[in-house]
Amino acid sequence: MNKATKIPEPTIERLAIYARPLEELVRAKVEVISSEKLAQMCDVNPAQVRKDLAFFGEFGVRGVGYNTQDLLEAIRKILCSDRTWTICIVGMGNLGKALVDNENFKKRNYRFVAAFDSNPEMIGQQLSCGLTVKSFEDIVKTVLPLRIEIGIIATRPSKAQQAANLLMDAGVKAVLNFAPTHLRTPECCIVENVDFTVKLENLVYHLEEI
Amino acid sequence: MNKATKIPEPTIERLAIYARPLEELVRAKVEVISSEKLAQMCDVNPAQVRKDLAFFGEFGVRGVGYNTQDLLEAIRKILCSDRTWTICIVGMGNLGKALVDNENFKKRNYRFVAAFDSNPEMIGQQLSCGLTVKSFEDIVKTVLPLRIEIGIIATRPSKAQQAANLLMDAGVKAVLNFAPTHLRTPECCIVENVDFTVKLENLVYHLEEI
Repeated sequence: MNKATKIPEPTIERLAIYARPLEELVRAKVEVISSEKLAQMCDVNPAQVRKDLAFFGEFGVRGVGYNTQDLLEAIRKILCSDRTWTICIVGMGNLGKALVDNENFKKRNYRFVAAFDSNPEMIGQQLSCGLTVKSFEDIVKTVLPLRIEIGIIATRPSKAQQAANLLMDAGVKAVLNFAPTHLRTPECCIVENVDFTVKLENLVYHLEEI
Repeated sequence: MNKATKIPEPTIERLAIYARPLEELVRAKVEVISSEKLAQMCDVNPAQVRKDLAFFGEFGVRGVGYNTQDLLEAIRKILCSDRTWTICIVGMGNLGKALVDNENFKKRNYRFVAAFDSNPEMIGQQLSCGLTVKSFEDIVKTVLPLRIEIGIIATRPSKAQQAANLLMDAGVKAVLNFAPTHLRTPECCIVENVDFTVKLENLVYHLEEI
């Protein structure tokens, strides 16, 4: 597939979602899956699945389905998740600790290589993953030589902008922000915000429909 | 607006996203916002904003913009987030603790009224929010009389299905699942899965584009 083709944002997000059941199927040695079944597993319309996958050329065999292994590999290649990514994390409260232990990160080759906090009580603590929590002052000198491209912010809101600034000074290009605040970043840095209540509002909307 | 109108899923999700900067604007007493500016604040195409809002009738004044307060109230009404929702949570490890303390839940009228864990060391602990952690055996008898409609699962994967079954026995109709596992639930129960790595894969895809 050609990266010059402009792929719609929702398609990119759905590709990551299609990869989830495919991982399970490959593990269970199921070799072929129909678009209907995959759609059902992901709670997406089958026509949407076929349309999304058509962006990347011919995957499926009409009337048979997709080879699970081939499709998974192709999606990983498209999403660049076929390699290991190193991540640093700022904010080692309950959320930060939950994130470094989250099995999905490990399973998908995201590796935490540095952890930071501004709270003197946290600094120096050894985490269950083996990392030692460092101070904010250590961010640039730790992250820069490791060439870490992705940073996660899990601080309280009042510390998030400072964390973002330090990460950018350290050459980080992409930030996953869990702090409930808007970050000001230059154009060259990509920020994705995670807000749990967006999902909750979806749920509530559908709850009223029942 | 009429709930019979079938509103596309992505529109519902974006409405929750539009509400975020609108809350800030209302707080800052900014009375009017253009679709261009709102789109920019949410990282969405302006045409998309206008199209999404058009589902719900006439909000904006051409050439002027939207009244921030009116628009926010209308979105909240559509999403049913204009009332207080009570929630229970199962799994009081680091993630569970982070969730009950998350400011976005408080800010948006989601109130945690019960917390459960299967770990004997956790049961009986008093949380910073004031709740006391109860055992799995207490789920049905606690949740049922409180008529709680929404449950959050933040257990380890091996406990998630048991948690879901107990929540459904207790009359819960909607589950926000943070455990990295697929839950089997009857059709009448809505499940939204939260997988942080989906967002990360989005980031990584765009990182390769830079």
